[in-house]
Amino acid sequence: MFFASDNWAGAHPAVAKALGEAAAGFDPAYGSGDWDKRVSQRFSEIFEREVAVFFVSTGTAANSLSLSMAGRPGGVVFCHPEAHIREDECGAPEFFSGLRLHPVDGVLGKIDADALSKAIDRYPPCFVHGGRPVALSITQATEIGTLYALDEIDALGRLAKQSNLMLHMDGARFANALVALDCSPADMTWRRGLDMLSFGGTKNGCWCAEAVVLFDPSRAEEFAFHHKRGAQLFSKSRFVAAQFEAYLTDDLWLENARHANAMASLLADRLSSLPTARLAWKPQANEVFPILKKHTAARLQAEGAKFYDWPAPGWYGQPIDDDEMLCRFVTSFATREEDISQLLSLLG
Amino acid sequence: MFFASDNWAGAHPAVAKALGEAAAGFDPAYGSGDWDKRVSQRFSEIFEREVAVFFVSTGTAANSLSLSMAGRPGGVVFCHPEAHIREDECGAPEFFSGLRLHPVDGVLGKIDADALSKAIDRYPPCFVHGGRPVALSITQATEIGTLYALDEIDALGRLAKQSNLMLHMDGARFANALVALDCSPADMTWRRGLDMLSFGGTKNGCWCAEAVVLFDPSRAEEFAFHHKRGAQLFSKSRFVAAQFEAYLTDDLWLENARHANAMASLLADRLSSLPTARLAWKPQANEVFPILKKHTAARLQAEGAKFYDWPAPGWYGQPIDDDEMLCRFVTSFATREEDISQLLSLLG
Amino acid sequence: MFFASDNWAGAHPAVAKALGEAAAGFDPAYGSGDWDKRVSQRFSEIFEREVAVFFVSTGTAANSLSLSMAGRPGGVVFCHPEAHIREDECGAPEFFSGLRLHPVDGVLGKIDADALSKAIDRYPPCFVHGGRPVALSITQATEIGTLYALDEIDALGRLAKQSNLMLHMDGARFANALVALDCSPADMTWRRGLDMLSFGGTKNGCWCAEAVVLFDPSRAEEFAFHHKRGAQLFSKSRFVAAQFEAYLTDDLWLENARHANAMASLLADRLSSLPTARLAWKPQANEVFPILKKHTAARLQAEGAKFYDWPAPGWYGQPIDDDEMLCRFVTSFATREEDISQLLSLLG
Amino acid sequence: MFFASDNWAGAHPAVAKALGEAAAGFDPAYGSGDWDKRVSQRFSEIFEREVAVFFVSTGTAANSLSLSMAGRPGGVVFCHPEAHIREDECGAPEFFSGLRLHPVDGVLGKIDADALSKAIDRYPPCFVHGGRPVALSITQATEIGTLYALDEIDALGRLAKQSNLMLHMDGARFANALVALDCSPADMTWRRGLDMLSFGGTKNGCWCAEAVVLFDPSRAEEFAFHHKRGAQLFSKSRFVAAQFEAYLTDDLWLENARHANAMASLLADRLSSLPTARLAWKPQANEVFPILKKHTAARLQAEGAKFYDWPAPGWYGQPIDDDEMLCRFVTSFATREEDISQLLSLLG
Repeated sequence: MFFASDNWAGAHPAVAKALGEAAAGFDPAYGSGDWDKRVSQRFSEIFEREVAVFFVSTGTAANSLSLSMAGRPGGVVFCHPEAHIREDECGAPEFFSGLRLHPVDGVLGKIDADALSKAIDRYPPCFVHGGRPVALSITQATEIGTLYALDEIDALGRLAKQSNLMLHMDGARFANALVALDCSPADMTWRRGLDMLSFGGTKNGCWCAEAVVLFDPSRAEEFAFHHKRGAQLFSKSRFVAAQFEAYLTDDLWLENARHANAMASLLADRLSSLPTARLAWKPQANEVFPILKKHTAARLQAEGAKFYDWPAPGWYGQPIDDDEMLCRFVTSFATREEDISQLLSLLG
Repeated sequence: MFFASDNWAGAHPAVAKALGEAAAGFDPAYGSGDWDKRVSQRFSEIFEREVAVFFVSTGTAANSLSLSMAGRPGGVVFCHPEAHIREDECGAPEFFSGLRLHPVDGVLGKIDADALSKAIDRYPPCFVHGGRPVALSITQATEIGTLYALDEIDALGRLAKQSNLMLHMDGARFANALVALDCSPADMTWRRGLDMLSFGGTKNGCWCAEAVVLFDPSRAEEFAFHHKRGAQLFSKSRFVAAQFEAYLTDDLWLENARHANAMASLLADRLSSLPTARLAWKPQANEVFPILKKHTAARLQAEGAKFYDWPAPGWYGQPIDDDEMLCRFVTSFATREEDISQLLSLLG
Repeated sequence: MFFASDNWAGAHPAVAKALGEAAAGFDPAYGSGDWDKRVSQRFSEIFEREVAVFFVSTGTAANSLSLSMAGRPGGVVFCHPEAHIREDECGAPEFFSGLRLHPVDGVLGKIDADALSKAIDRYPPCFVHGGRPVALSITQATEIGTLYALDEIDALGRLAKQSNLMLHMDGARFANALVALDCSPADMTWRRGLDMLSFGGTKNGCWCAEAVVLFDPSRAEEFAFHHKRGAQLFSKSRFVAAQFEAYLTDDLWLENARHANAMASLLADRLSSLPTARLAWKPQANEVFPILKKHTAARLQAEGAKFYDWPAPGWYGQPIDDDEMLCRFVTSFATREEDISQLLSLLG
Repeated sequence: MFFASDNWAGAHPAVAKALGEAAAGFDPAYGSGDWDKRVSQRFSEIFEREVAVFFVSTGTAANSLSLSMAGRPGGVVFCHPEAHIREDECGAPEFFSGLRLHPVDGVLGKIDADALSKAIDRYPPCFVHGGRPVALSITQATEIGTLYALDEIDALGRLAKQSNLMLHMDGARFANALVALDCSPADMTWRRGLDMLSFGGTKNGCWCAEAVVLFDPSRAEEFAFHHKRGAQLFSKSRFVAAQFEAYLTDDLWLENARHANAMASLLADRLSSLPTARLAWKPQANEVFPILKKHTAARLQAEGAKFYDWPAPGWYGQPIDDDEMLCRFVTSFATREEDISQLLSLLG
């Protein structure tokens, strides 16, 4: 009953197998080998345009180095108050980029376009005291398992363009969002104005496979120095390439994400039918946020179920009683239906 | 004939196997799982004292975060002019630590104790204009495949202690040095005054297994924030733990290093016996630096041999003629005797 | 009718005279001369304990370097949402200190102790994802001309101490607050737990005289490196010392502040009596925030009155109508009663 | 007998007078007032083209912010080993710009063009390990009182342009160099390819008047954010403007520099004629470096003469005996002929 996070799982067998097969032989180091080139080409196919791809070790690195492309003294990045870059990365985005984060609120974990517009207006041109907006960062799927619809990304992308902001997407759960929206990678990214993408593979079946995708490949040379200076240039780079190759072959990544999302739906449905639980909001990807009685949650944990309580944010409607708590359950490629059944049996 | 670098090899079969076996099942993320604890304990055994261990993605990260423990405004780190942190890491050590590097020369790739003493004297106490020395970084084995003898480390360690400098060792090729000196890990490190060690596993048979070892574990909490802020906290941390577990089991790491060193010795011996090559200096670990005729080197490369020409430094005696060049050949766990024979057959 | 800011004035005649008299003769550079030592001693007398004093060029520098004393990776500083360090310094505090700012709200421009307590609780010990609180920064007088009472500083200081936070005060208008509270400098600072003070002289009659005061002088050596590395070590340091010497002689600084505050009171009283204006809140130092009809404000500006409109914050009770705006009028040592009369005559 | 440094003097009477006269009245803050605009215009006249001018508090700030305009991850600045930015600024240039300094040697304190060319060649294009050259910084007059001839600047400027390096001049003693070369400010700067100039007024008669001059004014907006983020935007900016206005009026700056240089020549001539002293090299600006017997130097200091002993560099021909030392004597606008006579009388 492991619902604490999708990063508690190990690696998908196909990814593990690919790594094993890649172990033999020699290949040029530092990303210059054939393996890396092949995977890089695969990314371009998937995104239906030439992109530049850089492997990094963590989602934090992907976000931080992505944002560093917008780095300028006095620069400001807009993000949701609950964004991972603001709440969970120990200041790494600020450290690598030199930027400050300006939170812009919105319901269900998503930045509200009107609020963004007002936030932008707080920075008149050349007003050195306040600083200058340089980027907008959105998270898809969001931290609370919701999704920006394509037209919502569009609206934010237009605002970004108007104000000369680079648009970044934290895609730690990119695949989960993609299959939920049932659109193409291109449709969810550069066709909506995206400049930089943190493309996560780790949470969805890889060991350690995160990438920064730049939709303007002419910026690759510049990024390469950020990458190396950021201590993120792997020597045996093919160990990431091999993971991504398996991940992106035969739609493994999409299958894994579909499975995780389906498990989340199943969990949500079954929780909804219980008198002892209710959903804080409808899950759209692979995270489920039920409101449980505190004693119920305690009992589950005592029985070995792994999940987190979650700070109740301000952006949803229903009140939480004093004897209740908001909880987060995350599913992954490795979640089995029987895990859910076992969990539910404890709640029944 | 891959002698370009020890990071062109893949992973040792035992490491690959361990990774494959670790793929299944769930484990707490971010280094808090049993796997990490077990490996951490193993490091303490190997070093014969309690140490704190943090996994990082690259040698550059290990060096940069190690030095960040000494970070203070105006701080200066002494290192050899040819040190990796100075020549090959794109300024990452300076970026992460905020420190400046002050080169101190010495023959055969090693810092000279007298020169270090003079360098320290250039910084009188509280002289804010010049800055303040805070650390000394040595490389073992050095960038040119030589070794500090234990009493040489001792002498530098005493100087460091007298001047209140933290002592760091870049151990990208730690195992190669260790087996060459035939001493214990403790003898080569904290018993000589070492504070921080970049412990490299990648070049010696792992995919991606680098660690920072702190010999004062009371500094672990402080380091944890440097680690996360540096974007180096892996979520599925056990993928490194599993590599290290295999690496440190049954002396695999020492065997791999012995093999690499033996291959370097063999290569050196056989090169020495040729009229067309001579050694710039005697190799002590797994790197061989012959001086070749330029046309010979070109022919080798045309035949597919991989190695690098190397900028001729100032610290060795023999002159290089205009029609000659200094070359670097690196051996690894994956180098086979027949690779050397094949290379030599081209030179014969 | 110059009410835009207290930094539109020049220098008080006594300060200008002192500078003129200091121009001749030679004195050791970089703060080591007698002049600096004399002024440093004067600060210790004023604060009734030995303090360390460093001159800096701007209030932004004073705040940024003060906070740099608390700088640690992942570190967080609590401040009011409207704090100068957050809104008006272009990210300099984050740049110099490496810290992030966590806003904690409260009415009338002052941090609420309960809200601070809750904010601190968001950072459990050793939780690297979120970071770690390291400092609390308060502004006295606040950005909106209000004051923390001594017991309010006490309460915040106790919270800071309990959580091991360094306590910083942005005292750009320190003297204005001091005379308004009618207490001693010691009572408003270290007796309430203060560690670092940005002591401003520029707004109150100097040309360029800002200082960082450290109440623990054993930290002076450490600060000296922050100071020089921050490009803030003046060579002809006595040009600041001379200003401060005049400023702190014969209570000039207190007289200037009393005058500025009295002018603000007068302005507030006379505005209150008008049907065309009302005060957003009662001024406690030298800033007055009336709510004016937009057409009235426009007329004043057309007549040459200098003042700023001000973004209406959330922390005060009275609503502002659509045809109204919040305005800021600042008085200084140089404001004359006739300036106020002239302004009022336009409003009458 | 104050020869320790030109920053031991106070302010020239004309500068002091101007400051006194500027004290009254109101002026917009933060550099937007008429005074600043007038002085800015004056700089454009002096340089015979439109330039952007920003006032800063110290020479270190001028250098550091100038170089920050070239700041990029992995970036490298070439400078002389003895450059102030490398030896005397506590790492501020690296801190503000994020760049590393690569020393390039040359005799008499000047970068050798051939050595620079070789240094540039160490950085092949896109070689992320080593980094990338982004700027060249020269000092005029140099740290040892010598001068780059115009054609020497030309040669370095051409090299810089070929390699896409921004060219910076540390002009802490700009005026001393200018009058010694007897050329126009334009001839010594942008006509030789200069991009950024640290224009120093403090050492030559001002209290605190340093400026960054950008020869491409289209970069002014970008610089404005570096300036404010660097805590260098003065509120009562006219206190610098007033100093510069006096300084640049009626050739005061040139007169002061001519006087200082003449005093240095006089001192050098008289020292040369003594049997007890010899010059290490011929002074070209306002610094004299004699080699004195140690006991002679000690006697001078005992008699109250202020000067520094100087670390003997490698770049000049004559040997220094064990009983000798290299000394530095600096003259300024405030040095009087009788000071020199008094000094010489002690040596006679």
